[in-house]
Amino acid sequence: MSAIRDLRPTITDIRKAAERLDGLAFRTPLLESVDLNERTGGRILLKAECLQRTGSFKFRGAYNAVSQMDPEIRSRGVLAWSSGNHAQGLATAARLHGISATIVMPKDAPEIKVANAKRLGATIVPYDRYNEIREEIGGRIADEHGLTIIPPYDDEHIVAGQGTVGLEIDAQCQEMGTEPDALLLNCSGGGLTAGCAVAMTANNPATEIYCVEPEFYDDHAQSLANGTRTEISTDKRSICDSLLTPIPGEVTFPINKELLSGGLTVTDDEIRDAIVYAFERLKLVVEPGGAASLAAILTGRIDCKGRTVCAVLSGGNITKEMFAEIMSRGGSSSR
Amino acid sequence: MSAIRDLRPTITDIRKAAERLDGLAFRTPLLESVDLNERTGGRILLKAECLQRTGSFKFRGAYNAVSQMDPEIRSRGVLAWSSGNHAQGLATAARLHGISATIVMPKDAPEIKVANAKRLGATIVPYDRYNEIREEIGGRIADEHGLTIIPPYDDEHIVAGQGTVGLEIDAQCQEMGTEPDALLLNCSGGGLTAGCAVAMTANNPATEIYCVEPEFYDDHAQSLANGTRTEISTDKRSICDSLLTPIPGEVTFPINKELLSGGLTVTDDEIRDAIVYAFERLKLVVEPGGAASLAAILTGRIDCKGRTVCAVLSGGNITKEMFAEIMSRGGSSSR
Repeated sequence: MSAIRDLRPTITDIRKAAERLDGLAFRTPLLESVDLNERTGGRILLKAECLQRTGSFKFRGAYNAVSQMDPEIRSRGVLAWSSGNHAQGLATAARLHGISATIVMPKDAPEIKVANAKRLGATIVPYDRYNEIREEIGGRIADEHGLTIIPPYDDEHIVAGQGTVGLEIDAQCQEMGTEPDALLLNCSGGGLTAGCAVAMTANNPATEIYCVEPEFYDDHAQSLANGTRTEISTDKRSICDSLLTPIPGEVTFPINKELLSGGLTVTDDEIRDAIVYAFERLKLVVEPGGAASLAAILTGRIDCKGRTVCAVLSGGNITKEMFAEIMSRGGSSSR
Repeated sequence: MSAIRDLRPTITDIRKAAERLDGLAFRTPLLESVDLNERTGGRILLKAECLQRTGSFKFRGAYNAVSQMDPEIRSRGVLAWSSGNHAQGLATAARLHGISATIVMPKDAPEIKVANAKRLGATIVPYDRYNEIREEIGGRIADEHGLTIIPPYDDEHIVAGQGTVGLEIDAQCQEMGTEPDALLLNCSGGGLTAGCAVAMTANNPATEIYCVEPEFYDDHAQSLANGTRTEISTDKRSICDSLLTPIPGEVTFPINKELLSGGLTVTDDEIRDAIVYAFERLKLVVEPGGAASLAAILTGRIDCKGRTVCAVLSGGNITKEMFAEIMSRGGSSSR
């Protein structure tokens, strides 16, 4: 790859990714809730990627990336470091290509994510996220075994694959006879955000795109405000295990800088409320990182009145224990 | 109504109901799970009526029934007795027609169902389900205030409305290029079962239709075996609060007797496992009565190998407390 090659995927790249995923990824529903519409005074459409294969959108990007590899290199296997959703996506993508997947995963990753990656055929290499550097461990193993590292977001094929979520939202909005005024995307490294921003603005240049991050992990919001990739401290903890990055990606940020209207931030407690709301009113299981955009809507961080606002419920991989704990702390019933 | 009038709704009645519900009821998704397919060796398609307006399919029948009333009589208001889902459906149907809804509801009905019916504008009259007779209480109030009783299942318009679930399953299967070999329906009084049986067999006469009931409340299964409406004891308790009827309906049973291949029964523990499975793998919130068909699939009560089997996840109205309790008892993770 030459240094001047533009790594931004185009709408054509995303359409090609959609063709590759046809019949493998589900076209998840774009759901509407009368209660949510009445509560906000707008029309809220939720893309339920928690219902996607592997329980999150991550399968889309992983499959697209693996499918684009040189077959000879691919046959040696792939490796990733991931808190879980990318791991499950990559394990499934590898299995569908008949190759091995090795996952470097934090020792304290949610048990369900570890178990699911194993169930999907991956080999798990645990590490201590507070004392070890996953890139070093992963790089060493990849070198030793000739494995190709598949990054979770900072890769054009990953971004293009995640963009198929936006392509579907656009098509589904058209089928419903509406055009979104705004699209909210839960944001970690920015792959889903960048891919969906490209896909959505291709047909709907006026749609406002926002990324949504947890409190203390607002590296995208800060970077957008500063106009440059800004690293944040990762000392603080957050329940959003799938949204914890210190800095936007090199591939993703230039796209997001150009196409986003801004970054929104929500607290862990607001996310807990959103998970309870999704349980009580939407009947959906949403993981903390998957509920950030819904929390932004419920708290009024984004004005929905008289507008059509789309949000991606990006994943549903949460343990029974954490879910039960969130259910037991009061929540949206009283609102 | 004359005694010789046939109260069985036809496929035409169901299509007309679908027209009335267009834009009011959601066309809920027919979902597929790779894990469920692999586990059963078949293709399992789940109609997610837990995602329906009011959290269950009951809105469909209630709205269809209210919309068919004489406007003068309707304006005085409607009344129902219900454990909750019919109550929510009727309250919403009444609100959409600008009339009042009075609901006679057990004192021990799930709190969320009472709260939701109130939130939807209904007036709640509580009764003691072990010492009082709801029909007497409801009848007296209806007489006093000129209200029309809308039964939960034993009514041709209710059956036709619930049948729109089957109409959508048929259309969605066609869109997916498949034809169901079997359709499983959670069964209480038999309204959903009868409506869907009529709708499905109109286009797919070879599709096997089964009702699924909780242990101890298998009045339909017993009635089908005996060839006649058979009353069961209601001494035993069950977690399936929405499936507790002592005897099949007078309108529903003749239809079900003609069109059903049989009745399946599942235990409360099997239903709890199915709720956990829906949480972990499907990312859906399903109430006990809504999970019976899924339990029948997971336990192998119905052979799915090499077949396309559809099931309706008929509702998702379960309290946080009960859900957390079910999550905490072990369950499908270990399977």
